Amino acid sequence: MNTEIISIGDELLIGQVINTNQAYIAERLNSVGIFADRMTTVGDNEQDILSAFDQAWKTHTVVTVTGGLGPTHDDITRAAVCKFFQTDLVIDDETLNNVTSFFRRRNLPLTELNRDQARVPRGCTVIQNTKGTAPGYFFERDEKFFIVMPGVPYEMKEMTDSFVVPFFSSRPTGTVIQHRTLKTTGISESFLAEKLKDITPLLSSKKNVTLAYLPSPTGVRLRISVKAQSTAEAANEIRFFEQAIRSKVEPYIYGTDSEELEEVIGRILTEKLLTLAIAESCTGGFIAHKITNVSGSSTYFERGYVTYSNESKCTELGAPRTAIQQFGTVSKEVAEAMAFGARKKANTSIALAVTGIAGPTGGTEEKPVGLVWIGYSDEQETFAIKNIFSGERTIIKERAAQAALELLRRKLLLIPIDSNE
Amino acid sequence: MNTEIISIGDELLIGQVINTNQAYIAERLNSVGIFADRMTTVGDNEQDILSAFDQAWKTHTVVTVTGGLGPTHDDITRAAVCKFFQTDLVIDDETLNNVTSFFRRRNLPLTELNRDQARVPRGCTVIQNTKGTAPGYFFERDEKFFIVMPGVPYEMKEMTDSFVVPFFSSRPTGTVIQHRTLKTTGISESFLAEKLKDITPLLSSKKNVTLAYLPSPTGVRLRISVKAQSTAEAANEIRFFEQAIRSKVEPYIYGTDSEELEEVIGRILTEKLLTLAIAESCTGGFIAHKITNVSGSSTYFERGYVTYSNESKCTELGAPRTAIQQFGTVSKEVAEAMAFGARKKANTSIALAVTGIAGPTGGTEEKPVGLVWIGYSDEQETFAIKNIFSGERTIIKERAAQAALELLRRKLLLIPIDSNE
Repeated sequence: MNTEIISIGDELLIGQVINTNQAYIAERLNSVGIFADRMTTVGDNEQDILSAFDQAWKTHTVVTVTGGLGPTHDDITRAAVCKFFQTDLVIDDETLNNVTSFFRRRNLPLTELNRDQARVPRGCTVIQNTKGTAPGYFFERDEKFFIVMPGVPYEMKEMTDSFVVPFFSSRPTGTVIQHRTLKTTGISESFLAEKLKDITPLLSSKKNVTLAYLPSPTGVRLRISVKAQSTAEAANEIRFFEQAIRSKVEPYIYGTDSEELEEVIGRILTEKLLTLAIAESCTGGFIAHKITNVSGSSTYFERGYVTYSNESKCTELGAPRTAIQQFGTVSKEVAEAMAFGARKKANTSIALAVTGIAGPTGGTEEKPVGLVWIGYSDEQETFAIKNIFSGERTIIKERAAQAALELLRRKLLLIPIDSNE
Repeated sequence: MNTEIISIGDELLIGQVINTNQAYIAERLNSVGIFADRMTTVGDNEQDILSAFDQAWKTHTVVTVTGGLGPTHDDITRAAVCKFFQTDLVIDDETLNNVTSFFRRRNLPLTELNRDQARVPRGCTVIQNTKGTAPGYFFERDEKFFIVMPGVPYEMKEMTDSFVVPFFSSRPTGTVIQHRTLKTTGISESFLAEKLKDITPLLSSKKNVTLAYLPSPTGVRLRISVKAQSTAEAANEIRFFEQAIRSKVEPYIYGTDSEELEEVIGRILTEKLLTLAIAESCTGGFIAHKITNVSGSSTYFERGYVTYSNESKCTELGAPRTAIQQFGTVSKEVAEAMAFGARKKANTSIALAVTGIAGPTGGTEEKPVGLVWIGYSDEQETFAIKNIFSGERTIIKERAAQAALELLRRKLLLIPIDSNE
């Protein structure tokens, strides 16, 4: 089955809001055998909405719509849906109950605008909203499906997970689509392609298998996609190509699918019963933030120091004032001292430290913007490696954080540290 | 002038990558009077690409395409562009120079795949890529424009800013579109609508002015949009409605347009010559990360403590062990002790502290997931306020960080602390 995902909202068209809903819906529907082959965004404008509905409904088995269901006057999706299905509005008692209790729980009065949200298109199945007040609508017509959900991401996600996915997973869809993504870091797209060039002819000979290179500032993802008649057949193909790729570029692959580097590290630290401290200057807390995004990180993450000032590097981590004067704040010596100091003070197995120039100001010819020293310390050794990252301030923070975590992964798994690029 | 923004890439359709390019391009083109009225995403599939080109080119003055220009076999946009404009490929010397020197600067050999990127559609103006190797293409045909750029965001951004925007800003476009966004936090969409209900009739009477409510987990943005014949007329309308809105909800408005709360705070701290320290438990470094995303933050941000373990709260910040035992880690007493301890140890004017339960585990009936105490300390006072946030782990981190920064903003501007919701 195919789907077109339609997003509605002027805020998307003027670029004020990044559309995260499309990716979420696509990924979740993919998991139940529904493949998005088109995504469309239109404004809060009845004519554009109706023409998008029309085009999508003609060419797709499933049409998935988000946005424009809020309580305020600029939200017109509900009216457009009624027009499209030639129906009117009717009070839904369960929704009215939900809306009423939503406000009661928060000790807030129910406004007229919110009460109106309990009026839904006649003839739809209502998708209840447990995170907010606007309900979703679900239409089934001649083996085709029309889904309407709010644009607020966490409301839409909850409806997708608790209603849409369960609905379709109970219906078999014929073709099986499977993906497997191998996430690499520390190697560029063209270098990967060179290392994988022996696999390309093999791939070209297979009509049902594709390999995509997906670059991002922190690494290139390799995505294997397979269309097959059965789950077993798809899994076999994926296994074969995953192994072929791994045989060429294994050291660069830190994880698979949606796995983040910080999750991989968390798992290894937990298994090995090791603890971690972080000392950050130019990354400013970003590494600690990534690590603590992982549920359960409190078992291995002891503490972090965001030593932004020179003074704090000395008083918190015991970095020698003489080293800062002699070599500068962004130096091998200071990165090592920060890592060593953090490990000793936090009493952890390992510490990482980062000191660099995130820019846009502060660079010199000798020490340009993007220069980052990453320090590592455990009971056996303390050292630092030099990196030069390109990009704007936040990209440099991201790349430095990724490189620091990758250094830790390689140390934990005894993979040689690659100072190649 | 209108534009359709077309994104190409299977990674978008399977939901592996969130499309940030559309919003960036829309916002930048908006600034030169080009309004996106449709955004479309299709896969790496020649038929779908050509049909999207065809539909967009028939109905728009400007067509903006990104994605599928990489060096590997899955990138087919260049071939589709050639087919669409019925042209072939030709070597562009400047691109070849760029690609060659891109690799020389990095001490890397030039691969055949990269050399091939210097072949461009005959008849286009080449948009040079200073951040990567794939060039962009620009076609002008009968007062219409067709722009093709790589999908890698920082490459696309650079081309948009250095080529596309300057090109169109030198051509007048007739209608002026202006937006003004007032960013609020700490008040819900329906409460805002209630407070602004007197303004609604005024708005309805104006055909050329719209007000949109844009909710996010950390606040609601109010966007005023005006279409007018002149910049002066548009600016007048916007000024009038901004004032009308401010007169109703001023305390909740922390900034305008793309301004982030951490930038607003940075500006005030700089003006008042104040310094800041942060002590974080459940936000795990996220507040420090946000603060240090602002260039120049080193003038007011002294240091941060990510005191994730109880031990670190005691040894780093001097939180009394007895308080942790008696009231628990997530308590008013511990939040206050963390803020006070951080300010004293870092020797700053102000410190913020956050301790809470980000979930999904660790909640109890008495202290549920989402309970967050935010501590504040300056020379005059030390106190903490209680919050209960909903959402998943990362959303709770975001909401707690926003609430902590908003507390600081209100203290700095002497706005009463709102414990309403």
